[in-house]
Amino acid sequence: MKKWIINSADQPDEAMKAAAIRRQLELTKPPGALGRLEDIAVELSAMQGRLNPSAKNVQIAVFAGDHGVACEGVSAFPQVVTVEMVKNFIRGGAAISVMARELGAGLTVVNAGTVNEEPFGQPVVDRPIAAGTHNLVDESAMAESQCVQALDLGKDIIDGFPEDTEIVIGGEMGIANTTSATALGVAFGAGTASELVGPGTGLDHEGVELKRKVIERALSRFNNAHSVAQPLVILYELGGFEIAALVGYFIRAAQQRLAILVDGFIASAAALAACRINPSVRQWMIFAHSSPEPGHRLVLEALHASPLVSLGMRLGEGSGSAVAVTLLRSACALQNGMATFAEAGVSDALSDSISDS
Amino acid sequence: MKKWIINSADQPDEAMKAAAIRRQLELTKPPGALGRLEDIAVELSAMQGRLNPSAKNVQIAVFAGDHGVACEGVSAFPQVVTVEMVKNFIRGGAAISVMARELGAGLTVVNAGTVNEEPFGQPVVDRPIAAGTHNLVDESAMAESQCVQALDLGKDIIDGFPEDTEIVIGGEMGIANTTSATALGVAFGAGTASELVGPGTGLDHEGVELKRKVIERALSRFNNAHSVAQPLVILYELGGFEIAALVGYFIRAAQQRLAILVDGFIASAAALAACRINPSVRQWMIFAHSSPEPGHRLVLEALHASPLVSLGMRLGEGSGSAVAVTLLRSACALQNGMATFAEAGVSDALSDSISDS
Repeated sequence: MKKWIINSADQPDEAMKAAAIRRQLELTKPPGALGRLEDIAVELSAMQGRLNPSAKNVQIAVFAGDHGVACEGVSAFPQVVTVEMVKNFIRGGAAISVMARELGAGLTVVNAGTVNEEPFGQPVVDRPIAAGTHNLVDESAMAESQCVQALDLGKDIIDGFPEDTEIVIGGEMGIANTTSATALGVAFGAGTASELVGPGTGLDHEGVELKRKVIERALSRFNNAHSVAQPLVILYELGGFEIAALVGYFIRAAQQRLAILVDGFIASAAALAACRINPSVRQWMIFAHSSPEPGHRLVLEALHASPLVSLGMRLGEGSGSAVAVTLLRSACALQNGMATFAEAGVSDALSDSISDS
Repeated sequence: MKKWIINSADQPDEAMKAAAIRRQLELTKPPGALGRLEDIAVELSAMQGRLNPSAKNVQIAVFAGDHGVACEGVSAFPQVVTVEMVKNFIRGGAAISVMARELGAGLTVVNAGTVNEEPFGQPVVDRPIAAGTHNLVDESAMAESQCVQALDLGKDIIDGFPEDTEIVIGGEMGIANTTSATALGVAFGAGTASELVGPGTGLDHEGVELKRKVIERALSRFNNAHSVAQPLVILYELGGFEIAALVGYFIRAAQQRLAILVDGFIASAAALAACRINPSVRQWMIFAHSSPEPGHRLVLEALHASPLVSLGMRLGEGSGSAVAVTLLRSACALQNGMATFAEAGVSDALSDSISDS
């Protein structure tokens, strides 16, 4: 394994965290009355090493990749949709394109390995590792060397971001990638295939049953091949190019002291892989939302993560994270903009009653 | 009762709602994949009568009032805090002041009846009905005529908003007003005092017990006085000036076809009163968030309301609604800005598979 992948990320700044907690107690509100928004502002203070954290400068990368397992009929959509949606991302018509504009965020679209026959061309970052993975039911989804290539791709995207980047979001697009993410979740111990499997973009009951069987066949093959598997082996056996790229992206982001706003089921499966490969990454992650896909809840539990919102979103692309950025911005605005009791000149009776409580 | 209060609000535009639902199905995403954001955009389309709804022009009014029942020791804070916080609102240091700036929203601060001895002066709207309510344990919190005055005050605030207003938020400030809101919730059938009572801004266990007893004494007095009570009677017996003003504000907003983004426990208790007085108001309400105050969940259930987020906020002031505005804006941006399958020129295979599902 390349050395960079396992380099420990720094700890967020504990002294700054303590200072932010103190500031929250001084603001003109009952202690804790802003709930999760207080926690988020405090966490961002610790990550960014500043008492006035910011979620202004956001970079979004969406990684696209195709999956050999799509031929098993595990998706409600045909494989061509991966490529069509990449084109939609750059034309500006997809949900993540709209949200990037709304947020004033950078949007980088990366071809990590779709079945497109020729390069997409600018502005897509064309670095396909192959034209889709192998079918993970029959064989390893990718070679170890391909997985390392995908991890490096994710790293390179982070390294190309502007110096002033404050928040990074990783999105994905890949028909059949909930099958891969579910297999990864099971292999990383989040639960059984029956517990994690779900409709993805819209399978009916029979479709979900078929998908469960496909995932169990893949896991059976995998378990026969490996009595004990390292996290990287799980990733190349059952992952996808876009998922492995996200793993590298998350690990590098943490190493660069960047706050990561983790999206839905696929991104969370990649986050779980990243944390198993390099546990120091976990403390740089904030979890945006909980999707209705049953596997997401279990993968979040395996990560000891409490997502900010639960809006029934199940689109991927980084869209849930993009929506949650607005909550990070509110959290920052409140910590940075509210008056303290001292500044407000609020009566001694009030500040005394606060400091007693 | 003044006639305006019971005038029916219009229905939101059902034809526009159907058109918005159709548009959501044409956008480049699996049907329903944006979850609650789709519902919200569709609801706003119906309320605003346009396929491209907007949450840009937001008006926030915060009503402040004091409560006679504060003398029973039912709040973690002394009564002086109501007046101090009104000053903080207009100086810009409170949470709602910060959020109004962030959103570019109008903020109107209304003195509906605090114990302040003299007018606050501009920019506060000084229309105190009295220097706080009576103690609802011993007597009716206010006279019927005062309640009507407060309802009219709320109406006047709506009527003073700019023509282009799209979303209205009602916030409140009033030490001891969770006691009043809890009593209202019980009287409107949301549950028992034991079920609804909670710590408010930060009572300990003993404080909550005391508060429960105070509320039960008030309800016992009220029930002895009225075997059956009209909603308006419940409101003037157990409400507060800021709560009654919110009721008038909500009713008038619905009559003016304005989308109402309802805040936390107190605002939801006012929303419940508004819907009991004038049921046509309900369909103009979107519920922003769920607070940890136990009564809030039960009042929301009584309103058949599912709030958008649950962030542990328990501040009032309209702050939870203000934070949720960003989600409404995302919902609008997505419905208005995403490409349809036809616009995106996505392959027939894709749009066929969508229309089949």
